[in-house]
Amino acid sequence: MPQISVKGRQMPSSPVRKLVPYAESAKKRGTNIYQLNIGQPDIKTPEQAIAAVRNNSMEILEYSHSAGNESYRKKLVAHYNKLDMNLDIDDVIVSTGGSEALMFAMGSICDQGDEVIIPEPFYANYNGFATASGVAVKPIATNIENNFALPDIEAFENLITDRTKAILICNPGNPTGYLYTQEEMDKLAALVIKHDIFLVADEVYREFAYDGRVHHSVMNQAGLENHAIMIDSVSKRYSMCGARIGCMVSKNKEVVAAAMKFAQARLSPPTFAQIAAEAALDTPQSYFDEVIEEYIDRRDTLISGLKNIEGVQVANPGGAFYCVAQLPVEDADHFAQWLLESFEHEGETIMVAPAAGFYSTPGSGKNQIRIAYVLEKKSLIKAVEILEKALEAYKS
Amino acid sequence: MPQISVKGRQMPSSPVRKLVPYAESAKKRGTNIYQLNIGQPDIKTPEQAIAAVRNNSMEILEYSHSAGNESYRKKLVAHYNKLDMNLDIDDVIVSTGGSEALMFAMGSICDQGDEVIIPEPFYANYNGFATASGVAVKPIATNIENNFALPDIEAFENLITDRTKAILICNPGNPTGYLYTQEEMDKLAALVIKHDIFLVADEVYREFAYDGRVHHSVMNQAGLENHAIMIDSVSKRYSMCGARIGCMVSKNKEVVAAAMKFAQARLSPPTFAQIAAEAALDTPQSYFDEVIEEYIDRRDTLISGLKNIEGVQVANPGGAFYCVAQLPVEDADHFAQWLLESFEHEGETIMVAPAAGFYSTPGSGKNQIRIAYVLEKKSLIKAVEILEKALEAYKS
Ligand SMILES: Cc1ncc(COP(=O)(O)O)c(C=O)c1O
Ligand SMILES: Cc1ncc(COP(=O)(O)O)c(C=O)c1O
Repeated sequence: MPQISVKGRQMPSSPVRKLVPYAESAKKRGTNIYQLNIGQPDIKTPEQAIAAVRNNSMEILEYSHSAGNESYRKKLVAHYNKLDMNLDIDDVIVSTGGSEALMFAMGSICDQGDEVIIPEPFYANYNGFATASGVAVKPIATNIENNFALPDIEAFENLITDRTKAILICNPGNPTGYLYTQEEMDKLAALVIKHDIFLVADEVYREFAYDGRVHHSVMNQAGLENHAIMIDSVSKRYSMCGARIGCMVSKNKEVVAAAMKFAQARLSPPTFAQIAAEAALDTPQSYFDEVIEEYIDRRDTLISGLKNIEGVQVANPGGAFYCVAQLPVEDADHFAQWLLESFEHEGETIMVAPAAGFYSTPGSGKNQIRIAYVLEKKSLIKAVEILEKALEAYKS
Repeated sequence: MPQISVKGRQMPSSPVRKLVPYAESAKKRGTNIYQLNIGQPDIKTPEQAIAAVRNNSMEILEYSHSAGNESYRKKLVAHYNKLDMNLDIDDVIVSTGGSEALMFAMGSICDQGDEVIIPEPFYANYNGFATASGVAVKPIATNIENNFALPDIEAFENLITDRTKAILICNPGNPTGYLYTQEEMDKLAALVIKHDIFLVADEVYREFAYDGRVHHSVMNQAGLENHAIMIDSVSKRYSMCGARIGCMVSKNKEVVAAAMKFAQARLSPPTFAQIAAEAALDTPQSYFDEVIEEYIDRRDTLISGLKNIEGVQVANPGGAFYCVAQLPVEDADHFAQWLLESFEHEGETIMVAPAAGFYSTPGSGKNQIRIAYVLEKKSLIKAVEILEKALEAYKS
């Protein structure tokens, strides 16, 4: 039998998937599970996005332009330019989700063996994209005590080598919910200019900024035109994760030209989904206002609930819809599995993502979990109650 | 300005795209262009595939399973099993086009620096996927004289090193149109078993087998269960290239498990497109009969026309919808550009793909072009006439 050699390309398993079999067994036993482990929002997709697809009158479902339909890119750029990004349609490559945009970015700016610095904990699939691209992730620790704010810039500087090609940030962060301040963005900008590297900002949660906080896009950073790459997606913004539409944006023509080669190799992004994404751009502000109000309410419910549990420490997320909680357990991996295998409270349990998978430094985050507040408030209240009971039971 | 280093990852440009700017200029001058350069069929997508998307009643466009919707995989496997493939739904990973399936396959079976042997000329984007994955392509020459049939098996054997992980074939071939015989498949099967490597078969043109020829799938090859990986796509079969749905199929559990990690990292294939692909599986045989009759008619028109042009040599394609023609010119790249820049016949010209881009050996195929017969017969007749006039004019 052929030996699959994956030594050089040790693709990590997804940390939010490995619990799935245990969840399935629990469901079979009749246990109700509150799924707090994945970022699949329960919010409705804007009606006109799905309607646009319903109303299509195509006869031949053709490849689109490799950079995405021009009509979509035009409207998308107009949207970004309302946010003062000053973009041209040639600065945008429409991708199959933000996921593919991340692959394009890594592939375009990194040779095999090059390095990207990422504050951890970070979106676990960055590890997968880096491994697939032969890129080395250099993590830099952040702390729950200060909500996972940007570490001292010296810590970054210490990690920079001649193979460092970029700093990658997620803003607001998954799993941290941290939203970078203007001051932090300025520091990062100065650093990447000084070392002549790229600043890649994953902004797929851009709209989810709470309590009046302002999101500072890498595309608004003056002087960073040649260094900035923005990753975006319709998945979370319009609760249309299944569309698979994102984009890579840069004013650096060489970066876009390099990324276009990857885009052309895979021919085109999905056609139906581009129709939906284009129509979604007309979503009224009231939709976002409601959604954000809803998420703030959920976050407040969740965070205050978690803070009331003895021994639990939790960061205060300023954006996105995740939070990292530190638990009075040794091994959150084991605890999360135990929640599904051996625990229930009134016939119910919870599914959470052990946070270790969001760290790339071995041993980090072992007693932390990520909770996605993608369920309605009522369920979150129940989930917190279950977590409290579970921690009591787990101790003994 | 940051230096984009693409030394180690010299992504090739698409050979069918580099003429686009010249075509645009020609169009601006009012020249009518017969586009024979890309594999975008003009055939209608089966009505029920688009209707299924039109009739969807989704409210939240959610991520699907990373391996694709179970309902789609079930129906797809039933389809394959009618072709005696004896598959299970866990043998299939639905991908974003055959393109992504090729990336999954390369990533799963190759470490960086590993080698894949591919008979050339081959689908140009194999180069791109290999480069993106850090995999080295080892080409093996085939000849227009015998329609690009499989080379002597010794030629493969001579190329096998301890870094060789697979032989990749395209069956029927793009750009050659060559359909492998059972005998050739047997030889390849024996070889990959002997050397304990994989046989990856790109079968996206499976249905396009002409003149009563039978397509021999790698999945029907007895004894090859652990070595065979099939790449498939709905793009050409149902003329739904814009859907972006394909799949990777293997009975080797380790290969599928490795590929699943890539699939999970990018979350899911597009949801709308999976609905269309699932409905497309109900396409009646009459649709294919008509389409194939149409392509045979086109092929015959094209090939006999080309054979009548002095100095033109052409292979006889048994499948797919491409042919490679050898022209009485030194540099088909230059000729193809000249056709758009400097030639017209009665206000019209043709756009063809220079074949050099389908070879990985430098200098090979320099006097060859690929013609896609994706236009109706009337246009093909005109196109052949234009080619003839052009070759006369070019000579002088
Ligand atoms: C931080 C972050 N980036 C990118 C993605 C990729 O999402 P998609 O490919 O659906 O756009 C996700 C999805 O959860 C995410 O959380
Ligand atoms: C031989 C071959 N394989 C794979 C593909 C990829 O097609 P898709 O990604 O649309 O399935 C193509 C497209 O032209 C092709 O010709």
